Amino acid sequence: MPKISKKGQFMPASPIRKLVPYADEAKSRGIHVYHLNIGQPDIATTPYALEAVKNYDEKVIKYTHSAGTLSYRKKLCEYYERLNIHVTPDDIIVTNGASEALSIAFQTIMDPDDEIVIPEPFYANYNGFAQTAGVRVRPIYSEINNGFALPPIEDFEKAITEHTKAILICNPNNPTGYLYSKEEMETLRQIILKYDLYLISDEVYREFCYDGSQHYSAMSLKGVDDNVILIDSVSKRFSACGIRVGRMVTRNKEVISTAMKFAQARLSPPTYGQVAGEAALDTPVSYFDAIVAEYVKRRDVCVEGINKIPGAYCPTPKGAFYIVAHLPIDDSDKFCKWLLTDFNYEGKTVMLAPASGFYSTIGLGRQEVRLSYCLNCDDLRDAMMILGKALEVYPGKRMF
Amino acid sequence: MPKISKKGQFMPASPIRKLVPYADEAKSRGIHVYHLNIGQPDIATTPYALEAVKNYDEKVIKYTHSAGTLSYRKKLCEYYERLNIHVTPDDIIVTNGASEALSIAFQTIMDPDDEIVIPEPFYANYNGFAQTAGVRVRPIYSEINNGFALPPIEDFEKAITEHTKAILICNPNNPTGYLYSKEEMETLRQIILKYDLYLISDEVYREFCYDGSQHYSAMSLKGVDDNVILIDSVSKRFSACGIRVGRMVTRNKEVISTAMKFAQARLSPPTYGQVAGEAALDTPVSYFDAIVAEYVKRRDVCVEGINKIPGAYCPTPKGAFYIVAHLPIDDSDKFCKWLLTDFNYEGKTVMLAPASGFYSTIGLGRQEVRLSYCLNCDDLRDAMMILGKALEVYPGKRMF
Repeated sequence: MPKISKKGQFMPASPIRKLVPYADEAKSRGIHVYHLNIGQPDIATTPYALEAVKNYDEKVIKYTHSAGTLSYRKKLCEYYERLNIHVTPDDIIVTNGASEALSIAFQTIMDPDDEIVIPEPFYANYNGFAQTAGVRVRPIYSEINNGFALPPIEDFEKAITEHTKAILICNPNNPTGYLYSKEEMETLRQIILKYDLYLISDEVYREFCYDGSQHYSAMSLKGVDDNVILIDSVSKRFSACGIRVGRMVTRNKEVISTAMKFAQARLSPPTYGQVAGEAALDTPVSYFDAIVAEYVKRRDVCVEGINKIPGAYCPTPKGAFYIVAHLPIDDSDKFCKWLLTDFNYEGKTVMLAPASGFYSTIGLGRQEVRLSYCLNCDDLRDAMMILGKALEVYPGKRMF
Repeated sequence: MPKISKKGQFMPASPIRKLVPYADEAKSRGIHVYHLNIGQPDIATTPYALEAVKNYDEKVIKYTHSAGTLSYRKKLCEYYERLNIHVTPDDIIVTNGASEALSIAFQTIMDPDDEIVIPEPFYANYNGFAQTAGVRVRPIYSEINNGFALPPIEDFEKAITEHTKAILICNPNNPTGYLYSKEEMETLRQIILKYDLYLISDEVYREFCYDGSQHYSAMSLKGVDDNVILIDSVSKRFSACGIRVGRMVTRNKEVISTAMKFAQARLSPPTYGQVAGEAALDTPVSYFDAIVAEYVKRRDVCVEGINKIPGAYCPTPKGAFYIVAHLPIDDSDKFCKWLLTDFNYEGKTVMLAPASGFYSTIGLGRQEVRLSYCLNCDDLRDAMMILGKALEVYPGKRMF
């Protein structure tokens, strides 16, 4: 029997997927599982997208341009213009979700054994894209105690080597919900200029900023047009994860023309998804006002719920819909599994993501979990109560 | 300015896309361009797929399972069962087109500097997937003079080294239209067993077999369940290229579980596309009867048209909708460009794909072009006449 690749052998498995069989098993026993583990919003997809697909009357569903339809890219430029970000359709490649945008960006700028610096905890699939490209992740530690703010400039400088090609951030952040300030973005600008690095900025949660705070895009940084690669998506913004439409955006002409070769090899992004994505841009801003108000309520339910539990702590994130919380436990992988296999409170339990999967450094995140607040407030309140009950009886409790 | 990757720098550009600006320019001068360069069928997408998308009433377009929806994978098993291929839903990963199935298969079984043997000419994007994975292509020459049949076993053995991990075929073939016989498939079976290799079999044109000939799938080979990886797609079969739904299928459990890690990193294939793909399977077999009859007529128009041109020659392919033709020219890249920039007959010209892009060996295919017969017979007849006129006046004519 022929062997699989070493790359495949060491490809990290999703930290959440490992738990899915246990969740399925719990459900088969009649346990109700609150899913705080995934970022699949329960909010209805913008009706503009749904209607456009229903009304799409082409008789042949053809390939589109490999960079996405021109009409969609033009409309994306108008969207960015409203954010005071000036780009042209030639600066945009529409992709199969932000996932593919990240893959193509990695392949375009990095060879095997190149390095990318990422503040951890970070979105676990970054590891997968790095592994696929043969690229080494150099994590730098961001601390729960100061809300997962950007690590100090010295930490970046310690991590940067002759092999470093890029820094990757997610803003607002998955998993921490942290929103980088304009000052922090300016710090990143200095670093990438000083070391001649790319800055890949994953801003798929841009519209989800709370408490009056403003998002400051990497695309708004001055004098780094050739350094910045924006990763963007329709999925979370318009609650349309399944359409699989994202994009990479950069003003660096060489990066775009090289990325286009990778995009052409896979022919085109999905036609229906682009139809949906283009129409979604007609959604009035008020759509977000209502959603943002709802997410703030949900966040507050979770933050208050967690901080009421003895030995538990979480900061109050300003964006996205995730929280990383410290819990009084021995090992989050064990705890998250135990919640599904050995615990229920009145026939209910919660599914969480162990934060260990969001750290690249072995051993970090053992006492942390990620929660996604994509459920309604009543469910979240119940889930927080159940989490509290679980921590009262969890055999691996550790208060330090 | 930071550098792009070496991988990106040497990523091959699409042989056809290079010509697109010239075609656009010709059109801007009012020239009518017959597109014989692309495999975008003009045939209407199966109405079953279109209707299913129109009737899809979910209010949240969610991620699906990373391997594709279970209902779709179950129905695919029934489809394969009708072909006497026995697989389970766990043997299938639904992908963003066959393109992604190939990428994931490459990553799953090959590391950088591993080698894959492919009979050339071959589908140009295989080079792109190999380049992305850091894998070396070892081409073996298949000859126009015997219709691009499978090269002799000795040629495979000469190409196989200690680094070889797989053989890749496309059956029926793009670009040659060649349909491998059961005997040729048995030869491949012997080779992969003897050298412990994977056989990646790209069978996206399976339904397009002509003149009563039968398709023999690699999945029907005995005793090589752990070796065979099938690449499949909805695009060509149901004329639905834009839905971007393909799949990889294998009975090798280790390959599937490893491939799933790559699939999970990119979350899921497109939901609308899967809805379309699943419904497409309800299309009655008579749909293909009509299409196959139409393609046979088109093929015959092209084959007869080409073989009437002095110095031109092409075999009569038994499958797919492509022809590789020998033309009396100095250089197919030059000729295909010249057709767009310097020639027209009564305001019309043709766009062809230079075959050089389908060979990995430098220098091969200079006197060959690939034609795709995705236009109606009247247009094809006119296009063949125009091609003949062009060859009468092309300054780089070479009759040997």
